[in-house]
Amino acid sequence: MACEITDLETFAACMEDKVSVQEISVNTFWLMFGAVLVFFMQTGFAMLEVGAVQAKNAKNILIKNVFDASLGGIMWYTTGYGIALGSDSYETSGNNGFIGTDGFLLTTGAFRGSGDDVGINWAGWLFQWAFAATTATIVSGAVVERVTFGAYVVYAMCLLGFIYPVVVHWGWSAGGWASAWRETELLMDCGVLDFAGSGVVHMTGGTAALVGAVLLGPRSGRFIDGIPVELPQLSFVYQTLGTLCLWMGWYGFNGVSTLAIVGLGEVAARAMVNTTIAGGVACVTSVTVAYFRIGYVDITAANNGVLGGLVAITAGCSVVMPEGAVVIGFVAGFVYNASSVLLLKLQIDDVVDASPVHMFCGMWGVLAAGLLAEKDNYGESYYSERQGDCCGAFYGCGGNQFTANLIFVIVVLGWAGFCSFLMFTFAKYTVGLRVSKAIEDAGMDDSKHGGMTMPSGGDSLSNSRVVKAFPPGAAGTDVEGASIQEHKMGR
Amino acid sequence: MACEITDLETFAACMEDKVSVQEISVNTFWLMFGAVLVFFMQTGFAMLEVGAVQAKNAKNILIKNVFDASLGGIMWYTTGYGIALGSDSYETSGNNGFIGTDGFLLTTGAFRGSGDDVGINWAGWLFQWAFAATTATIVSGAVVERVTFGAYVVYAMCLLGFIYPVVVHWGWSAGGWASAWRETELLMDCGVLDFAGSGVVHMTGGTAALVGAVLLGPRSGRFIDGIPVELPQLSFVYQTLGTLCLWMGWYGFNGVSTLAIVGLGEVAARAMVNTTIAGGVACVTSVTVAYFRIGYVDITAANNGVLGGLVAITAGCSVVMPEGAVVIGFVAGFVYNASSVLLLKLQIDDVVDASPVHMFCGMWGVLAAGLLAEKDNYGESYYSERQGDCCGAFYGCGGNQFTANLIFVIVVLGWAGFCSFLMFTFAKYTVGLRVSKAIEDAGMDDSKHGGMTMPSGGDSLSNSRVVKAFPPGAAGTDVEGASIQEHKMGR
Amino acid sequence: MACEITDLETFAACMEDKVSVQEISVNTFWLMFGAVLVFFMQTGFAMLEVGAVQAKNAKNILIKNVFDASLGGIMWYTTGYGIALGSDSYETSGNNGFIGTDGFLLTTGAFRGSGDDVGINWAGWLFQWAFAATTATIVSGAVVERVTFGAYVVYAMCLLGFIYPVVVHWGWSAGGWASAWRETELLMDCGVLDFAGSGVVHMTGGTAALVGAVLLGPRSGRFIDGIPVELPQLSFVYQTLGTLCLWMGWYGFNGVSTLAIVGLGEVAARAMVNTTIAGGVACVTSVTVAYFRIGYVDITAANNGVLGGLVAITAGCSVVMPEGAVVIGFVAGFVYNASSVLLLKLQIDDVVDASPVHMFCGMWGVLAAGLLAEKDNYGESYYSERQGDCCGAFYGCGGNQFTANLIFVIVVLGWAGFCSFLMFTFAKYTVGLRVSKAIEDAGMDDSKHGGMTMPSGGDSLSNSRVVKAFPPGAAGTDVEGASIQEHKMGR
Repeated sequence: MACEITDLETFAACMEDKVSVQEISVNTFWLMFGAVLVFFMQTGFAMLEVGAVQAKNAKNILIKNVFDASLGGIMWYTTGYGIALGSDSYETSGNNGFIGTDGFLLTTGAFRGSGDDVGINWAGWLFQWAFAATTATIVSGAVVERVTFGAYVVYAMCLLGFIYPVVVHWGWSAGGWASAWRETELLMDCGVLDFAGSGVVHMTGGTAALVGAVLLGPRSGRFIDGIPVELPQLSFVYQTLGTLCLWMGWYGFNGVSTLAIVGLGEVAARAMVNTTIAGGVACVTSVTVAYFRIGYVDITAANNGVLGGLVAITAGCSVVMPEGAVVIGFVAGFVYNASSVLLLKLQIDDVVDASPVHMFCGMWGVLAAGLLAEKDNYGESYYSERQGDCCGAFYGCGGNQFTANLIFVIVVLGWAGFCSFLMFTFAKYTVGLRVSKAIEDAGMDDSKHGGMTMPSGGDSLSNSRVVKAFPPGAAGTDVEGASIQEHKMGR
Repeated sequence: MACEITDLETFAACMEDKVSVQEISVNTFWLMFGAVLVFFMQTGFAMLEVGAVQAKNAKNILIKNVFDASLGGIMWYTTGYGIALGSDSYETSGNNGFIGTDGFLLTTGAFRGSGDDVGINWAGWLFQWAFAATTATIVSGAVVERVTFGAYVVYAMCLLGFIYPVVVHWGWSAGGWASAWRETELLMDCGVLDFAGSGVVHMTGGTAALVGAVLLGPRSGRFIDGIPVELPQLSFVYQTLGTLCLWMGWYGFNGVSTLAIVGLGEVAARAMVNTTIAGGVACVTSVTVAYFRIGYVDITAANNGVLGGLVAITAGCSVVMPEGAVVIGFVAGFVYNASSVLLLKLQIDDVVDASPVHMFCGMWGVLAAGLLAEKDNYGESYYSERQGDCCGAFYGCGGNQFTANLIFVIVVLGWAGFCSFLMFTFAKYTVGLRVSKAIEDAGMDDSKHGGMTMPSGGDSLSNSRVVKAFPPGAAGTDVEGASIQEHKMGR
Repeated sequence: MACEITDLETFAACMEDKVSVQEISVNTFWLMFGAVLVFFMQTGFAMLEVGAVQAKNAKNILIKNVFDASLGGIMWYTTGYGIALGSDSYETSGNNGFIGTDGFLLTTGAFRGSGDDVGINWAGWLFQWAFAATTATIVSGAVVERVTFGAYVVYAMCLLGFIYPVVVHWGWSAGGWASAWRETELLMDCGVLDFAGSGVVHMTGGTAALVGAVLLGPRSGRFIDGIPVELPQLSFVYQTLGTLCLWMGWYGFNGVSTLAIVGLGEVAARAMVNTTIAGGVACVTSVTVAYFRIGYVDITAANNGVLGGLVAITAGCSVVMPEGAVVIGFVAGFVYNASSVLLLKLQIDDVVDASPVHMFCGMWGVLAAGLLAEKDNYGESYYSERQGDCCGAFYGCGGNQFTANLIFVIVVLGWAGFCSFLMFTFAKYTVGLRVSKAIEDAGMDDSKHGGMTMPSGGDSLSNSRVVKAFPPGAAGTDVEGASIQEHKMGR
């Protein structure tokens, strides 16, 4: 409906409103686009993780991937979102800087009010939920094959419902003590520069992964007299496809972290370009480093190299220049290799190398942002008033930004490490942390999930004796048990 | 090119046009975004279905998935779109309320005219085609492993070309007797509230699936003396990856069913948030219910629980509140389990549980929308004039909406059931409905598709004797046959 | 912030700026959407290619897929983008028409300037990178299983860094001799009509694929006395899933080739609709043609039929009418089958039929655009001034457009063929082109990548002896070697 043109004031108000509605709508679209891409990373992680486990634990890891998304939705709805992004500002609640205080169950005015921008909040909830689900999934890969399902539920709920949201609040909310979006008292006068979460997401998840791997101990047979033994894994095909799917989702993870698109197209596109360059350089670097160590072109070095590079660029994707992305990816290739070897020397069994990729490369990413953020880019991504003081040390801004980022790294390590220690210990003394050796040897699927994906003794997929465990029939458990046995033994 | 500023009227007209073109373009982009996501569900269904069949029928189900999209495009182009969304209004064609009367072969002015909004129609065609392809794919999963390829072609063409488009016309067109978009004589003064198709898509497909499964009879060996026997399935990995891919596509299925984004950002984002919550709650509920029945955490209960929840929220995704989505997902978890067990008791062999997920949970979804649609949300999604009378019974709107939805459920069940019965029976007496027992035992791939994906006797994938069946060489069939045999027997 | 309404001129300038920023932002979003979809085709190609190889070479092809994206990013950043789309216009650099002269390392004003549209250039870089990675991936499928990794790196770098960017410059830049975007001296007064790249991308990649397959020679055992022997392939499941993923990505490939969305919604939507129709028709045609040749419904005919149709529609997707898309898909079904058989008669071993799908169907696609481009559609996609002279021969525009397209086909064939010949020959005499027979028989994975995905002798996936090759432990190579052997022989 055309605007009235009785006078300029009337027309202007009407046209401003039209244009404003369009802008809000496009920004909401952008957030939903990002949420869908980040959610797709669940599929990527599922592929990556199922490819890395021994076949006897395939169902187990798959169920957890589905639960990461499902429990993630429930926890984000109940406590997570509110803790992360609920009210905590000078005006309304005295600014504790630690934790949000409302927004639970999607009940606040931000969601139920009638403003034009309410839709942005719903879409932002969805985008942030997808990030949360990513954090939980990072942990699963490290502790798989010997953690109990009960412990999984405990750590997923703790991580999704409290541990991770708190870090989000610190780093990304309007009130968090480390956030660059605070009105006053910024950390080192800058706030942390972690644009899409090398620290907030990847270090949090990666640290919890490492703590879990340490507390659980290595898988049976993984180290013999201190020497690592290669355990068979299901499929390098899934590992690679998962890597490519994660790479695709990462464009939403990094690019859409602008949280709006109108007026921010250049920032978002630069984030995506830097993501591409860092991932590619890290891949080639990692493979080359590994080649000199082990003597051949290794696919795991390629895949985890890509992922390490993507993790590392995540903090500074919008603020570095492409040449900075090259440096970040290059170093990430080394950091990945080195930390992976370090874990083996310490006899820590992180099944998918989750902490080398996410914690160590995440640390490098946060620190790198404090070194390589370019001045004008900083101004376009954050605040132009600070771009003379809060960019990277290598771009003439001194050490403030780097120090802020370093402090954040240390605190997140401590928080995630300490909380993970508590939650895994809690799990240990309540539901049990690690399965028995017998169950571990037989495999989680057979013991806990109704049957293996492909039982031993099956001669090929065409004659697989897989038992479709659900739903059982009208018969009693005996007959059901008999049917399963019958199938296992012959045909 | 800047607008002329000679006077307000000139400037206003020019600026209105600019803003209008932008709005149309953004809305067209939104529809294409949705079409791509819904099309991705074909990949998800392919994974889900190939994971559920016995290995000897893998190629067979895969070809059908590719044909669902391909035949779907051809049928939608020829008859489907026109029947679904062609002219049928009071003004132009007397409003039969049953079926569209033009739009075939993309030839009408809506597609070939010169208006600014013609692009919206092209994008809408694409979006709706993706929905149609989904409906056909739902059926394939139930009847696989014993239906003939000829019968598949028959039912796909009937479903895509007529049965489904008619339901779309009833529920979603401007003239359909049950549509909420009619100008006058609305069903129960409201029209059905099925925002994205729990009824239109999932019940239609799910009912055809059930009828097919019944008419075909169970797979050989599936029931022994009334007791269900678990047949081996190819891979739970594909089943789970398929579920996660479908979940991602569902954001397009539900969110983009606003059909436009400008001014509708909140509606779309709410639809996506509700989708997330319902899927997650249904998953956890389904797994818990199954745990109490069978004693372990079951992956199929998790996957199909997610899907059942997503199906159920589809009708009311834009109009319920998150707490309503929790209820919808929770009940869906029970509905899925119960209907799955019911089919077994009735000795119906629905290979992937397509009708429990799509028909039964679809029914619940449509009815739930009539109970839980919130008043203001209804006004934002449909018409504000009706929001006092046409929201959910639990929100103070009486029984009109619920009754309209109940009538729609009954009619769709009857229509889809009756038409499916006719088409499967027609197939039976023309091309044949079910393969012979010999073919069923050997597997569809070996008999009908040039060789199995992985033949029995192959000792592992590395030495698989797969015959790449196409294209054969210059040699005659004998040598080709000899080559195949030769490969099967040794190397 | 509302615009000042002191007078019309002030308000107008402010409002124009707002609307302009929104338009630029939406167009940048559109390009990023497209880039993500085209990048997803890497995952599709990975699935397609790994499904087609023998299991012993699975890791090898997977690493190359990851490298196509990674090396692609590095090459596009260094030389590729500049050669393809760098300055070469009458005004600035004298217009050599052959190659771009700046834009390397993302350093020009187009990327580092401060204009409002700089973001479009970043996003365009990303979109074009994804296209480049596609071209490299096309080649991998044809030469796999016997090409050395060194030769792969050589051809990937040549193709990504020079051969392909040159063709992009010719066909799509503002100065290229064959480009329809030139200001003067258009080829045949029209410039080539290759909207999304049947020629620029698919013919270039497909020709390099064919040359590579010829120079490498067939795989050991592929032809015996001139008769083709079917070698086992890993999985038709991946082949089909890959096809469906590629189909989804193609909507970005074809639809987003409008390079902007504001005012171009109809062009983009039509491109996507035509893509759908051509792919579907080609699939059904190809399967039918194959049925009459080999006697059964063949999955490879279905998958490659889809792909051949999608390749063929790529040139004319925005300019043909749906009936034209039907013709293009129909003929593509025949072209695919015929060229595939031709290669076998010539004893050329193109493992995935890359050149039938990409080169032959690409040729058909470019020629078809010169026959079937509709007049008004041409005007909306290119220039309305030329729509009376530069549409398809069947639409009353004479032979100019067809001739321009034919010339382009011949030149691209010659350029890609000649350059590929040079680069493969260069590889042969430096790093080696083909692996030894011993390595080929054992498989690339075992010889070159640390161990097979699933070694022979493994009785099932649950007892797979896969060696997770990275990272090795603190032990020396002997013990590592011993561990691997130990695992291979028993457990």
